Amino acid sequence: MRLFGVLAAMTAFTFSLPALAETTPPVALAIHGGAGTIDPEKMSDEKRQAIAAKLDEALTSGYRLLQNGGSALDAVEAAVRVLEDSPLFNAGVGAVYTWEEGHELDASIMDGATLEAGAVAGVRTVRNPISLARKVMTDSPHVMLAGEGAEAFARSQGVEMVPNSHFDTESRLKSLKEAKEKILAREGVSHQAAVESLESEFKMGTVGAVALDSTGTLAAATSTGGMTAKRWGRVGDSPVIGAGTYADDAVCAISATGHGEYFIRYNVAADICARAKYQGILLAEAADEVILKRLKQAGGTGGVITLDPEGRVAMPFNTEGMYRASIDAQGNKQIAIWQSVIEP
Amino acid sequence: MRLFGVLAAMTAFTFSLPALAETTPPVALAIHGGAGTIDPEKMSDEKRQAIAAKLDEALTSGYRLLQNGGSALDAVEAAVRVLEDSPLFNAGVGAVYTWEEGHELDASIMDGATLEAGAVAGVRTVRNPISLARKVMTDSPHVMLAGEGAEAFARSQGVEMVPNSHFDTESRLKSLKEAKEKILAREGVSHQAAVESLESEFKMGTVGAVALDSTGTLAAATSTGGMTAKRWGRVGDSPVIGAGTYADDAVCAISATGHGEYFIRYNVAADICARAKYQGILLAEAADEVILKRLKQAGGTGGVITLDPEGRVAMPFNTEGMYRASIDAQGNKQIAIWQSVIEP
Repeated sequence: MRLFGVLAAMTAFTFSLPALAETTPPVALAIHGGAGTIDPEKMSDEKRQAIAAKLDEALTSGYRLLQNGGSALDAVEAAVRVLEDSPLFNAGVGAVYTWEEGHELDASIMDGATLEAGAVAGVRTVRNPISLARKVMTDSPHVMLAGEGAEAFARSQGVEMVPNSHFDTESRLKSLKEAKEKILAREGVSHQAAVESLESEFKMGTVGAVALDSTGTLAAATSTGGMTAKRWGRVGDSPVIGAGTYADDAVCAISATGHGEYFIRYNVAADICARAKYQGILLAEAADEVILKRLKQAGGTGGVITLDPEGRVAMPFNTEGMYRASIDAQGNKQIAIWQSVIEP
Repeated sequence: MRLFGVLAAMTAFTFSLPALAETTPPVALAIHGGAGTIDPEKMSDEKRQAIAAKLDEALTSGYRLLQNGGSALDAVEAAVRVLEDSPLFNAGVGAVYTWEEGHELDASIMDGATLEAGAVAGVRTVRNPISLARKVMTDSPHVMLAGEGAEAFARSQGVEMVPNSHFDTESRLKSLKEAKEKILAREGVSHQAAVESLESEFKMGTVGAVALDSTGTLAAATSTGGMTAKRWGRVGDSPVIGAGTYADDAVCAISATGHGEYFIRYNVAADICARAKYQGILLAEAADEVILKRLKQAGGTGGVITLDPEGRVAMPFNTEGMYRASIDAQGNKQIAIWQSVIEP
């Protein structure tokens, strides 16, 4: 584990931005690019730097909006769009492949001020699913749309459409082939058992953001390509309000990443909020309880990014790593991949 | 309001079954057939009696299993299947129509012992969506399947398939035409605003069941045709674990019915469980807080059926009526439609 600390030091850093005037309402932003088995020894310096740079770009794009008085919703949408448009993460371009070698994208967004929310599941030709989720929230009478219907809604809203191949990447196709080979090699066991025996790296990968704006509003957003080799129109936790995404100005903004089935069953995002709200504990403490204890004991791998109404950031995960970055209400900035965050 | 009490007396009754031996572990079951604007003056005696008889039949089919040592999962599935196969309720046969004059069915089921769950959204040709949801739980590596993919999974499992017209009923078609007429008549307002102005009767209708078996396991199940005139692959709360359905042996089994968008945003089923768990209050009290206060204040109409680990039943709703029936751990049986439950 010492190795991780040393390697982490190479990409994880924190520093303080110039002290803010006391009269400026605090703003804060945290983002993630997925949790999982991220082996530091297998990651090239180039890839590590590319990931850190893209996280920084996404963080900056959202944070600038917040600094200029923009809304938490605008900030999380902007940050997630940057990550969706990058092939480095499992969302938008770079989304994993389904069993049939296509891409089915899920996303959701929630406004902590109104508890309004929007979500889409299984969309194939929408360039930025997070923006479609926001349209569902603001311009449809519904919260969640799926499949062909969601695409028809997207067209009616003038959202940017792309061919499904827009999301293709060589590395994800290779992962699909590996996953299918492993599943099909397990003769004599059910598809279910074969999938369950797959390494967790095939089951994860998501991007997300949580923000606090200068009006005190919290928002959360999550987007994903789901699980490698998923079949049968599988919907993960990312578009499930309460599982992958939740926001409530009274207590929390949360975006999750991990083995989605567990996050749905354990109602992870909302359960963390509920613990903070009803037990009167800090959101960070509630997040640790759920991610590092309850979910871990159940075998559920992944993590969350959380932001409380005071702009405090916590980003616990029970996997080897989680791509993440944040600037809290005090202006402390952090970009990290592995467990240890080393002070500069 | 006195009128309701009088009319309620005609269909709502409670009585005690023969006292159970102290050594028999308690079992309990509650079911619902939807909440909404149910005008007692507009309901014929025949319809009232037919509804009461079908609720009784569903209740009995599940309760018999429990009495014979059957599992809570078997009991909720059996009860919901009876309601799905009846044209009286908005699930299975009798499901409302989509904008395009078809049916898209949603369902979910959850095992409180393991927190395992299964859900399907937008299925069109599966006779009993609740049984497919159970197959998703037991025989797929996933929790939630949607659309065409869910149908393909159904075929691979040998689940009974029917043409979409199997779910047709004259009265629901009439409701669709009314709803579309009202929406299209509202020129100059958005589809969203027009739908939001629709009477709540068009937005509700669900069936569900919660059970406690002799091993102390709780289970919950919910099934629906969704909202009349729904479009764009709309998914309501029924297949969303945490919103329409939740079960956890430690504290609760819950099935919800109402304006689904609110139930998703307020994470209703899981929030009731969380309040009971973290605030240490009775489940019934938590359900009242959410349904009669928080949700009602937000404008969210509907109700829930709840069962706690001691087999206590609570079934609060903030609408005029909710079709419901239950037998609690003491053997007290109840079948009711409106607010008042009159002692015999």
